[in-house]
Amino acid sequence: MLQLALPIVRTVAELRARVAAWRAQGDRIGLVPTMGALHEGHLSLVHLAKTRVRRVVASVFVNPTQFGPNEDFDAYPRDEAKDAQSLASAECDLLYAPTVTEMYPIGFSTSVTVSGVSATMDGIARPGHFSGVATVVSKLLLQCAPDVAVFGEKDYQQLLVIRRLVRDLDIPVEIIGAPTARLDDGLARSSRNAYLSEAERIVAGRMNVIMTDAAVRLRAGEAQDVVEAEGLAALKIAGFDRIDYFEVRGAEDLARPAKAPMRIFAAAFAGKTRLIDNMAV
Amino acid sequence: MLQLALPIVRTVAELRARVAAWRAQGDRIGLVPTMGALHEGHLSLVHLAKTRVRRVVASVFVNPTQFGPNEDFDAYPRDEAKDAQSLASAECDLLYAPTVTEMYPIGFSTSVTVSGVSATMDGIARPGHFSGVATVVSKLLLQCAPDVAVFGEKDYQQLLVIRRLVRDLDIPVEIIGAPTARLDDGLARSSRNAYLSEAERIVAGRMNVIMTDAAVRLRAGEAQDVVEAEGLAALKIAGFDRIDYFEVRGAEDLARPAKAPMRIFAAAFAGKTRLIDNMAV
Repeated sequence: MLQLALPIVRTVAELRARVAAWRAQGDRIGLVPTMGALHEGHLSLVHLAKTRVRRVVASVFVNPTQFGPNEDFDAYPRDEAKDAQSLASAECDLLYAPTVTEMYPIGFSTSVTVSGVSATMDGIARPGHFSGVATVVSKLLLQCAPDVAVFGEKDYQQLLVIRRLVRDLDIPVEIIGAPTARLDDGLARSSRNAYLSEAERIVAGRMNVIMTDAAVRLRAGEAQDVVEAEGLAALKIAGFDRIDYFEVRGAEDLARPAKAPMRIFAAAFAGKTRLIDNMAV
Repeated sequence: MLQLALPIVRTVAELRARVAAWRAQGDRIGLVPTMGALHEGHLSLVHLAKTRVRRVVASVFVNPTQFGPNEDFDAYPRDEAKDAQSLASAECDLLYAPTVTEMYPIGFSTSVTVSGVSATMDGIARPGHFSGVATVVSKLLLQCAPDVAVFGEKDYQQLLVIRRLVRDLDIPVEIIGAPTARLDDGLARSSRNAYLSEAERIVAGRMNVIMTDAAVRLRAGEAQDVVEAEGLAALKIAGFDRIDYFEVRGAEDLARPAKAPMRIFAAAFAGKTRLIDNMAV
């Protein structure tokens, strides 16, 4: 089998040089920021970017500042060679894989914070998480200066945070949200699925079923608080070990009670693995 | 006398269109962010920018988020026609004067914060001030996308905050610090000097004399804490009504006690007017 060679750069200067060369040819550029451990979901973001621009850069950076002190930063799966191979097969043009020191040199002391859409759900369950995300995404966008950047709807609250900061800080880029890729039983694809035991994997697959059921009932006019309470109960019965939330919220502002368009959000632990998912009503 | 006409734009879209047209001609662009009430100090920033790039944009925006609740936002002097005339005579190419709603539309909820250099002196005396500055300057830089941006050393701590955020967020611009413009008795030029009564104006003029004296003594090897204590006493004797600080600090990191290169910083009120100044040792 042909081994496709994907160029890899590790510094802002090299990244900018590549992007500048493409711009000089008149090419438009897309960025797909990731934390690696790439799966079909990530590759679908690359494919989507490729339909919009000529050149696609994927970044792989496991960002320490968006992990809490008791979270899985050290354990987070890393396999750059495999990621590079996947990206090459998805016709990605460049892998940007900076080191932690390239991103956060000694003396680094700036943070970007988004209030409002950050202040709920994962913003409560994971203190500091969205500020870590907002800061690193601001940096990646300003380092690469792409025309478009693609983020998965799997991390829907993150997508809203990023849309907000891009608008508020006037970063000249179009943010594109891409639909969540799912496995056969509907489980949202996630790098963290790799942590799941066989038994946990079966539990995990119930989350999207419970959400789909809740969406049906909301469409039928059932009250939001009833649907939420029954969703929580159903997650417990399904075997989730700790449930952070199961909530119906406004799709644009995360307001609660939600006005249409509504969206359902869930976060729960299967064993030690925290899974999140969300779904349009 | 010839009335020079300076183009004025009020929206990000218009600003970007002008800048794009210049870029298409190969011109480099400089930005001089101001809060208006322009004096010779501001114009020296425009002149400095003009030595570095072909096209200079001055922004005039009295930024509400960098004023505290009991500060002088409402009273801050505003005279756009006069400012436009001054800028035209300084060969500025464009005045960017956005409205508050253009800068902070409904729903705005992002802030940029710099720790470290923000955490002392004016960061203590004016809570929230530097976050307001960091956020608005990030926006202006990303709206205009200049090659260089010029800020006065008069607001030296602000200059360090801006250098830090530009480096940390990877905003592709060169930040240039410009020497403080002074009046005949050495008083630093400031828009707030307009608030001073005749008696206060005489008091105000003592600040730079006291700082110059302190610099001489530091160069002669006198201890930093002694020089600081005597500077505070001298400001009191000179008639300042409230003194926020008189401190010797590291010129690059604001550390205290300071290692060389050192700089002296002062903030004090003449009547109700808060004046700041700083000086290299």
